[in-house]
Amino acid sequence: MDIGQKTVNNIRILSAEIIQKANSGHPGAPMGMAPIAYALWSKAMNYNSKDSKWANRDRFVLSNGHASALLYTMLHLFGYNVSMEDLKQFRQWGSITPGHPEYMDTDGVETTTGPLGQGIANAVGLAIAETMLAAKFNREGYPIVNHYTYALCGDGCMMEGIASEASSLAGTLKLNKLILLYDDNNITIEGRTDIAFKEDVEARYKAYGWNVLKVDDANDYTQILPALEKAKQSDKPTLIICPTIIGYGCTSQQDKPGVHGSPLGVKGIQEAREFLGVDTEAFGIYPEVYAHTKAIADEKALKQAEWQKMLDAYKNEYPELYEEWLLWNQNELSEEIFKDENLYKFSGNKATRATSGDMINRFAKYIPNLVGGSADLSPSNKTEINGGGSYSAENRAGRILHFGVREHAMAAISNGIALHGGLRVFCGTFLIFSDYMKHSIRLSAMMGLPVTYVLTHDSIGVGEDGATHQPIEQLAGLRAIPGNRVIRPCDGHETAYAWVSALKDKAPTCLILSRQNLPTYDNTGEGTLKGAYVLSPAKKEKPDCIVIASGSEVQFAMEAQGALAEQGIDVSVVSMPSMELFEQQPESYKQSVLPKDVVKRVSIEAASSMPWYKYVGFDGKIISIDKYGASAPAEIIYEKYEITTNKIVETVKSLM
Amino acid sequence: MDIGQKTVNNIRILSAEIIQKANSGHPGAPMGMAPIAYALWSKAMNYNSKDSKWANRDRFVLSNGHASALLYTMLHLFGYNVSMEDLKQFRQWGSITPGHPEYMDTDGVETTTGPLGQGIANAVGLAIAETMLAAKFNREGYPIVNHYTYALCGDGCMMEGIASEASSLAGTLKLNKLILLYDDNNITIEGRTDIAFKEDVEARYKAYGWNVLKVDDANDYTQILPALEKAKQSDKPTLIICPTIIGYGCTSQQDKPGVHGSPLGVKGIQEAREFLGVDTEAFGIYPEVYAHTKAIADEKALKQAEWQKMLDAYKNEYPELYEEWLLWNQNELSEEIFKDENLYKFSGNKATRATSGDMINRFAKYIPNLVGGSADLSPSNKTEINGGGSYSAENRAGRILHFGVREHAMAAISNGIALHGGLRVFCGTFLIFSDYMKHSIRLSAMMGLPVTYVLTHDSIGVGEDGATHQPIEQLAGLRAIPGNRVIRPCDGHETAYAWVSALKDKAPTCLILSRQNLPTYDNTGEGTLKGAYVLSPAKKEKPDCIVIASGSEVQFAMEAQGALAEQGIDVSVVSMPSMELFEQQPESYKQSVLPKDVVKRVSIEAASSMPWYKYVGFDGKIISIDKYGASAPAEIIYEKYEITTNKIVETVKSLM
Repeated sequence: MDIGQKTVNNIRILSAEIIQKANSGHPGAPMGMAPIAYALWSKAMNYNSKDSKWANRDRFVLSNGHASALLYTMLHLFGYNVSMEDLKQFRQWGSITPGHPEYMDTDGVETTTGPLGQGIANAVGLAIAETMLAAKFNREGYPIVNHYTYALCGDGCMMEGIASEASSLAGTLKLNKLILLYDDNNITIEGRTDIAFKEDVEARYKAYGWNVLKVDDANDYTQILPALEKAKQSDKPTLIICPTIIGYGCTSQQDKPGVHGSPLGVKGIQEAREFLGVDTEAFGIYPEVYAHTKAIADEKALKQAEWQKMLDAYKNEYPELYEEWLLWNQNELSEEIFKDENLYKFSGNKATRATSGDMINRFAKYIPNLVGGSADLSPSNKTEINGGGSYSAENRAGRILHFGVREHAMAAISNGIALHGGLRVFCGTFLIFSDYMKHSIRLSAMMGLPVTYVLTHDSIGVGEDGATHQPIEQLAGLRAIPGNRVIRPCDGHETAYAWVSALKDKAPTCLILSRQNLPTYDNTGEGTLKGAYVLSPAKKEKPDCIVIASGSEVQFAMEAQGALAEQGIDVSVVSMPSMELFEQQPESYKQSVLPKDVVKRVSIEAASSMPWYKYVGFDGKIISIDKYGASAPAEIIYEKYEITTNKIVETVKSLM
Repeated sequence: MDIGQKTVNNIRILSAEIIQKANSGHPGAPMGMAPIAYALWSKAMNYNSKDSKWANRDRFVLSNGHASALLYTMLHLFGYNVSMEDLKQFRQWGSITPGHPEYMDTDGVETTTGPLGQGIANAVGLAIAETMLAAKFNREGYPIVNHYTYALCGDGCMMEGIASEASSLAGTLKLNKLILLYDDNNITIEGRTDIAFKEDVEARYKAYGWNVLKVDDANDYTQILPALEKAKQSDKPTLIICPTIIGYGCTSQQDKPGVHGSPLGVKGIQEAREFLGVDTEAFGIYPEVYAHTKAIADEKALKQAEWQKMLDAYKNEYPELYEEWLLWNQNELSEEIFKDENLYKFSGNKATRATSGDMINRFAKYIPNLVGGSADLSPSNKTEINGGGSYSAENRAGRILHFGVREHAMAAISNGIALHGGLRVFCGTFLIFSDYMKHSIRLSAMMGLPVTYVLTHDSIGVGEDGATHQPIEQLAGLRAIPGNRVIRPCDGHETAYAWVSALKDKAPTCLILSRQNLPTYDNTGEGTLKGAYVLSPAKKEKPDCIVIASGSEVQFAMEAQGALAEQGIDVSVVSMPSMELFEQQPESYKQSVLPKDVVKRVSIEAASSMPWYKYVGFDGKIISIDKYGASAPAEIIYEKYEITTNKIVETVKSLM
């Protein structure tokens, strides 16, 4: 057995053993895909395991995240900061080796995967980012940005719609440095794949415009190596179809659904050891395997040293570009950017989607690495960077992304762009279609990625398009995502600061924007950063009632304040664009906005009541919509649904 | 001009005019697709416009729902209960002609569309249902169930992942009576389709196992007719690629993005009238066009008369089958079904996903038209009808659906099955992946379809699989969907009644089920139907505090009650499996469970706090999880996340 094969088999057993120790996990894919992983780490990929954040490393995405044991084993063997003890703590409390790979937890893990298909779209985003940065920075003789993106996926990923969306776009964009390896093992949890999946994957990917290669037997790593070399030469993205045997080695369990998600058992591991000829002790690595992988890792590390030398020369030859390189790769934006007062100037009646479009273009000048686009709605979402140029196979320097009508992939691709580093990304669609990309927004939040979601047409204000296009419960759903920020500004000033918050935050931000025009107020603006503030105080120190509103309903609250004053009722108006930002404020500030001793409170928002009980309590009242919208001119729906100034006035009076 | 072409052009102008009158809508697709629609209604389709619910009608789905003006125009011309006045009320308050087609609102509208791609998956569900019912009821010489399902879609649908998922499954299942017509007009909102969509659609659908036909010029309805006839002969589902010109007829605007979503304007309509040679008055229909369409509709209606004759003969020859036919087609299940006491018997420790599996099988005996399956997780979701047989191209009588790893399409296909009539359907996946199908669940709710969603692995109780697989905010999101029911039972008895509720309801129900074992209580059960009930009362009439819990946390509430009693604190325990069912109860019942004068309340649920403020108020406390989960054995995560009996005890004491 050559050292390569010996390593592959050692990887198989070690992966199975850490799963067995956890008494939980998925041995099938690691045992089937070990040769593929070995081909990548031993040969195809460029990386420095001692500096896993090296900007020009090849990116690796394990889209079928349940094969995490394989990834952790590879990271351990090839010198990343994943120890044998970490492997033994697989799936245990506080370990860096959770059940599915989690970004930030583990050295060398490029993205969080597990929910199937997401990784393929992340990889498309990583590959897009590479081309954008290469177009910006590379110069003759200086391929500063020049890496591949590899992704591994299984049948599950292949069936998910998000993978289809992302792959179709990747073909259109000719992302030739994207290489997807498909673990084609013919087994799913419910049985053989053909019970639900008889399509011709090769023909499908060719139809997307991909280069498709097929390995005869992916159990043999030596067959994968030439396919990878060939893939690198293609002018299209490449799919390498790798026929494997799930759970390979455990002869009584391999090629059956059961081995997907259950530990092999002590007997099963013994069986695999015998079949594969691995006679190490438990959790053992052959010394020659360690020596082999260490030698490879050491050699790989030299790539970064070479690259660094090139970068040093580049710094001399292109000092300005080099400065930009540093700037683009900074995590935080310079405070200088935010000082221009013109950024925040608005007046008159304007839809917040339009002011958001203004902000994108105002910031685009200051932030040259800001890129983004929409799922075929840019004229509505106002997401176009004027003069930014459309990104395409022919124009990698374009800043405008055309995602097509593919919301789910759009969000996950944006995650990939954010993960890459070097760029700031936003993406847009109608708020109603945030449902399509909900899980990818969750993953933005879980990973703490500063993707900005531009979600327009935010309520019954959509009007004639009707119930199918009018968001109701989407706000509640987005606000409930841990770590996600939702901001629903009431005018241009609040929109400006909503963008400031989005750009400064280390989390995703969902900007919730109106289709319809809204008035501009004088003293709106910076308060947005605190999530809620007293926009118009009561005359007395203690108001008779607090009216809390967000977005397009703030205007009604302001009008109601005046109408109530005429009737001798003294209310304060609180604008609450963001519950999440408000919750981050100190208790004293929260008290100043919503004093505990004022329990008479009325909230108004043209959406679900659910998020408002927290602020209104048993003694207040919520004006909201807990049914579907309707098709009619917007002002009529507002009237019929009683989202009006009058309704606030009546409701406040009913509390007096 | 032949009468067909005259009708086509009249349709184009009328569609554009009703959009113009509304000053809102999408003229591009109706004008481009009018020949396709004419080919369907005039020739290909079987229907009786005077009985639009005829069981054996062909089904028509407008997946690109923004072309609603075309659909309404067709329904009007071919004799459905859609008047000229209704057309003139397009997109107005209270009309039956909303901006996008809505099921139940409009005679002849088979499903609600607008969110792209959903209609294609609905059509796959309709086609599946047809084959299932045909397998059950058809006998030699009696093709009682024998209809086609037609769907129309545009580029947007084609790009959506849900369409890929559904189409791949349709190919696998060889749904040969499904015919999809693709409005291939090369234009999207942001520009020509090739900015984001260069794939070879023909090759892609062939890869899925479809029959693909291509019309040279779909502007010519006579070319579409033979393609439709050919499609009907195929043993595979058929895609007919129809090259059209968006906005055809309005020469200055056609073939450009702008015509997609903006009225033509008076001048534009005049231009189209001249080009198309339509000289009717405003909203005019040529008398000969009316005569033509009426004659067709009358002839079509004869099909139902013939069918009815056949059914009468069938009744004589197969009286038992005929009785079953009536039973299957009833909207409501017989009360008899629910009387068997054995349905409700459970004891010992058992996961609610397992008791749900028991209920499926207990009911499967009584409800022979209950079908369902999972997105490749049936061994985990416990969604298998034992002995039901796998549904496939070879076995149309199978009751077990294998959706593959395609959650989004699964939900929308289930909507299609429910829309068809004749069947009851459930579908399952992990609760975390409800995110993938959120919008289709919304559409189930909007349409009032009794689809049962079996959502298992409902919390951090998932354990080692970690944060990516542990739902946190999904419950809040699902509860916020108007008209949706969410039930999270605490044991077998509650699970049994959750299923009863799901089967009796006219709305979708999401069953939220545990992975882990839970104890069985004696007096749980029927209270589930009221959403919440006092599971264990306080000793005093007025409790010191109310502890409210759902699902797997009810056990902690029960334990805490005992522990608190020892310390002289007298609490009642309310089990609240369903907020939505509870809200439907009369105020007096709600008062009896949660009396207004007991404001000291503690809720516990291993999920987001958001839904609980409504029941807990400012004076109570919520034990919840507002961050992501972790990878470790479940009991350890429960401990670390303080979802415990002790935490309840401490929290109640802090309120005393």
